[in-house]
Amino acid sequence: MASTEKDRMCSIARSLEVLGERWTFLILREAFSGTTRFADFRSELGVAPDVLSNRLATLVDAGVLEKQPYRDPGARVRDSYHLTPAGRDLQVMLGALQQWGDEHRPYELGPTIVRRTVDGDRPVHVGFIDDTGREVPLEGVAFVRTALYPA
Amino acid sequence: MASTEKDRMCSIARSLEVLGERWTFLILREAFSGTTRFADFRSELGVAPDVLSNRLATLVDAGVLEKQPYRDPGARVRDSYHLTPAGRDLQVMLGALQQWGDEHRPYELGPTIVRRTVDGDRPVHVGFIDDTGREVPLEGVAFVRTALYPA
Repeated sequence: MASTEKDRMCSIARSLEVLGERWTFLILREAFSGTTRFADFRSELGVAPDVLSNRLATLVDAGVLEKQPYRDPGARVRDSYHLTPAGRDLQVMLGALQQWGDEHRPYELGPTIVRRTVDGDRPVHVGFIDDTGREVPLEGVAFVRTALYPA
Repeated sequence: MASTEKDRMCSIARSLEVLGERWTFLILREAFSGTTRFADFRSELGVAPDVLSNRLATLVDAGVLEKQPYRDPGARVRDSYHLTPAGRDLQVMLGALQQWGDEHRPYELGPTIVRRTVDGDRPVHVGFIDDTGREVPLEGVAFVRTALYPA
């Protein structure tokens, strides 16, 4: 089977059509920190404006961010960028990436962001959960190919 | 603060130094499917050999994959590539990416891979879990900046 068709069938490959790029993940990190304005993404990330425009447009087209107009006093109307429900669902993946970085590529002084419950301020981690609500250790989880899996 | 120092402090940015590239995620997908040999990664992914060499070397340097020599009858000794414990820990992040793709970028006929428990073959999803073992819904999880968070 051609690699492109195989990619079209793979949810990881399809996700990476939108997300598969370093700047995109960092833009999402900023969006989860509350950044919404082009100038703020730019100054927080130090990213070139054409790259930032391009990545924001990809995320808007994919329904991960949505534009909302705003207007500062004396300025023209501009767009701000806000996470959609699909964008907010990426918190699990970003949390998993953060957790892996904290564990396997630690910063010498400790983490700059931690995951906590809103109610009760308890530590939270990302993991696998079965249909009875129980956590399943990594070695207890299999990625199983369905009948659709390309030969 | 300079963006490079801020990136050095951020676990997402540090993870992306190793992972922030489409081919890298697809190589990991193949590794989790049991692919270990250069020729098999190449034919499964349709990736150019120089790109594949480069990405495998990055993953080996980062301790995500490790090389093991093997020798087919009549052939020279070659390296195969195997997930390390740090590499296996990426299963959570890949599972989260897969789950997001299945939900928000679905393939019309359904998923090609599903996440199931090894014992009991029950469906498994990726989510946030607190220190009492309970699943926490997305809106119940905050990413909280620590005192180290760059100004």
